[in-house]
Amino acid sequence: MLMKDHVYKLIELTGTSTTTMEDAVNKALKRAHKTIKNLSWFQVMETRGSIDKGKVQHWQVTLKVGFAVED
Amino acid sequence: MLMKDHVYKLIELTGTSTTTMEDAVNKALKRAHKTIKNLSWFQVMETRGSIDKGKVQHWQVTLKVGFAVED
Amino acid sequence: MLMKDHVYKLIELTGTSTTTMEDAVNKALKRAHKTIKNLSWFQVMETRGSIDKGKVQHWQVTLKVGFAVED
Amino acid sequence: MLMKDHVYKLIELTGTSTTTMEDAVNKALKRAHKTIKNLSWFQVMETRGSIDKGKVQHWQVTLKVGFAVED
Amino acid sequence: MLMKDHVYKLIELTGTSTTTMEDAVNKALKRAHKTIKNLSWFQVMETRGSIDKGKVQHWQVTLKVGFAVED
Amino acid sequence: MLMKDHVYKLIELTGTSTTTMEDAVNKALKRAHKTIKNLSWFQVMETRGSIDKGKVQHWQVTLKVGFAVED
Amino acid sequence: MLMKDHVYKLIELTGTSTTTMEDAVNKALKRAHKTIKNLSWFQVMETRGSIDKGKVQHWQVTLKVGFAVED
Amino acid sequence: MLMKDHVYKLIELTGTSTTTMEDAVNKALKRAHKTIKNLSWFQVMETRGSIDKGKVQHWQVTLKVGFAVED
Amino acid sequence: MLMKDHVYKLIELTGTSTTTMEDAVNKALKRAHKTIKNLSWFQVMETRGSIDKGKVQHWQVTLKVGFAVED
Amino acid sequence: MLMKDHVYKLIELTGTSTTTMEDAVNKALKRAHKTIKNLSWFQVMETRGSIDKGKVQHWQVTLKVGFAVED
Amino acid sequence: MLMKDHVYKLIELTGTSTTTMEDAVNKALKRAHKTIKNLSWFQVMETRGSIDKGKVQHWQVTLKVGFAVED
Amino acid sequence: MLMKDHVYKLIELTGTSTTTMEDAVNKALKRAHKTIKNLSWFQVMETRGSIDKGKVQHWQVTLKVGFAVED
Repeated sequence: MLMKDHVYKLIELTGTSTTTMEDAVNKALKRAHKTIKNLSWFQVMETRGSIDKGKVQHWQVTLKVGFAVED
Repeated sequence: MLMKDHVYKLIELTGTSTTTMEDAVNKALKRAHKTIKNLSWFQVMETRGSIDKGKVQHWQVTLKVGFAVED
Repeated sequence: MLMKDHVYKLIELTGTSTTTMEDAVNKALKRAHKTIKNLSWFQVMETRGSIDKGKVQHWQVTLKVGFAVED
Repeated sequence: MLMKDHVYKLIELTGTSTTTMEDAVNKALKRAHKTIKNLSWFQVMETRGSIDKGKVQHWQVTLKVGFAVED
Repeated sequence: MLMKDHVYKLIELTGTSTTTMEDAVNKALKRAHKTIKNLSWFQVMETRGSIDKGKVQHWQVTLKVGFAVED
Repeated sequence: MLMKDHVYKLIELTGTSTTTMEDAVNKALKRAHKTIKNLSWFQVMETRGSIDKGKVQHWQVTLKVGFAVED
Repeated sequence: MLMKDHVYKLIELTGTSTTTMEDAVNKALKRAHKTIKNLSWFQVMETRGSIDKGKVQHWQVTLKVGFAVED
Repeated sequence: MLMKDHVYKLIELTGTSTTTMEDAVNKALKRAHKTIKNLSWFQVMETRGSIDKGKVQHWQVTLKVGFAVED
Repeated sequence: MLMKDHVYKLIELTGTSTTTMEDAVNKALKRAHKTIKNLSWFQVMETRGSIDKGKVQHWQVTLKVGFAVED
Repeated sequence: MLMKDHVYKLIELTGTSTTTMEDAVNKALKRAHKTIKNLSWFQVMETRGSIDKGKVQHWQVTLKVGFAVED
Repeated sequence: MLMKDHVYKLIELTGTSTTTMEDAVNKALKRAHKTIKNLSWFQVMETRGSIDKGKVQHWQVTLKVGFAVED
Repeated sequence: MLMKDHVYKLIELTGTSTTTMEDAVNKALKRAHKTIKNLSWFQVMETRGSIDKGKVQHWQVTLKVGFAVED
């Protein structure tokens, strides 16, 4: 992330996916991007999941996402 | 929590109560429910309190609350 | 806990309750006591819960429980 | 807590109770209040307990307690 | 996870895989499923691995897995 | 902070500054104050920074900020 | 530990000893070895102890122990 | 710190200041020095603060302070 | 890892990738392998990333890597 | 530790020793025992040390020590 | 930090200063810059200090510093 | 450790020993001393081990070691 003289806000999201952890992250980012256009960086906080018949049903990846707040 | 193919948002709240920790949690959830109808799960992050004359004056329970974001 | 020259085992449980955190802990201990008679001490690891209509539906308290292993 | 231009000291206590976690906290505060009159705030650090016959025998809540040091 | 009035047990497993972290998780779940049919949720605790000639040889993902205990 | 019978919200911000950590905190608070008038307390979560030619270019201080939610 | 294509289980034990921390670890492993022959590695999680007349009475070392689960 | 064959005690203090974090630390040390002359080292544990009108009102720095105990 | 009577060194690296977390790890290991031939094991410490237009631009996986030091 | 209906205080000490970690713990307990007769349990918090010519000069073990407070 | 397709190395340093925490960080970066020209970002890990006559003698700030490794 | 106006570097090592944790630390320090003469202090980060036939085969103690960097 390129930090200028800005203030950044961090929000916490959980993305879910039936396929991979990467997909869960991208699902969360895609949804947040609908309302916040300048998402800048993220950090994975936790990876959990639900199980069905001994297989991962949904990957649940919780992440913090940062973006610059407009002046 | 029943995780479908959704994205979830987590917010952090501190509920306060003069009686119990459970009441502090419920006070925070009740207030958040006014504006967010589909609160889904929470996690207790920290329990603190103020003291008056050697007794707990206010229980202050900080929690993360998760809810599905509409598409 | 009174530690003699024993070896102890720790297991991790999540008790749930619609009323209080204390009840969730006791529900977990009660169930474990069915098969393990000498439960000795516990430590609360995490407190979470599900929410229904802005109220706590189930308290979910995760705890480690220790007990002496027979020689 | 209302922080003036003071210095505060934090001490660590474990309160015990046969009934609730809240009672364990208040037992610790009540005892500390005998010698320190201006206890100001606390933070719960750990919750443990002893078990007897599959029930919680004593709740053991460890807390940090802060109070202003006299000039 | 949909938490009813049950008690849950958590066990800790390390799954290994030569391909991906997701595969390592699924290998652990598949093995546990042989003896425990109602695995319900998991949480990734740690990701490690062995290295051979500058490449990941085995992904080693440690996870906690929860399941309801029968009454 | 003087905790009444309120519910508080915590948000997470990163303030940046070319001069000091204190200035980075104040920059974040100043910006948040534009839209939230009753900011009450903060906690420093992390201190990072970017480097240019062996000198700190920007201090990046991440903080949680709490404020009472109106009834 | 040599990680093959196996799944491993981790259990948590507390070994106690009147002499050294190393002895407490070995006492725990010795006991576990009675029922699990292929214990593979361990990690020390916590070191506590009981005190009698200003001396350590029992060292209490809590460890996680890993072993391969048979296919 | 130069560790001889001594035993050290650690106490926890919160210093407050309207100006800088360094000043908050020094205020705590200055006060402790009134009763303990051989303070030796400290470690910053937490940095919090109160806010007034979008500015830091008081920096609140919690530190552990160590000093040798006389034989 | 097969621990003989050796001493090991751990270094910390951040690998980056536009595709997956696994690729980011392997990129870091491949680069380290150029100068250190006997890399033995790694542990993932943190997963972050940069975002461009609501998609992950670069996965940034920080890992500790261990290898035996020659006598 | 056998927890009755008491309140316990925890203090933090660093014991030092030129020989072993166990000796550092016992040195700290021995010193504390001079003024506090009913020390009950301890927990190791941190192990550090000073080095002289490539050998451990002093083991520095920091521990929390608990004891019942008289009514 | 602007993350390209590089691999980064992180080293850990402790800078010391008699004046401020910021100065301690800059002293560490200045020294590292003598041998590593492309230092890119840092993270503060710990802040400690030595005390002389009730005043901070040296601020000791431990930081991780990251920089791109040449191909 | 006596902190002058220096900059210190911290490296991370794992020492192994078939006998004690202390020996594992000293083995790591002895090896590091071959190339770095002014090792100053260390901190134990983690204690793990390999197991053979229900006994500790190798103690594996990971430590951070600090030393002053020459100007």
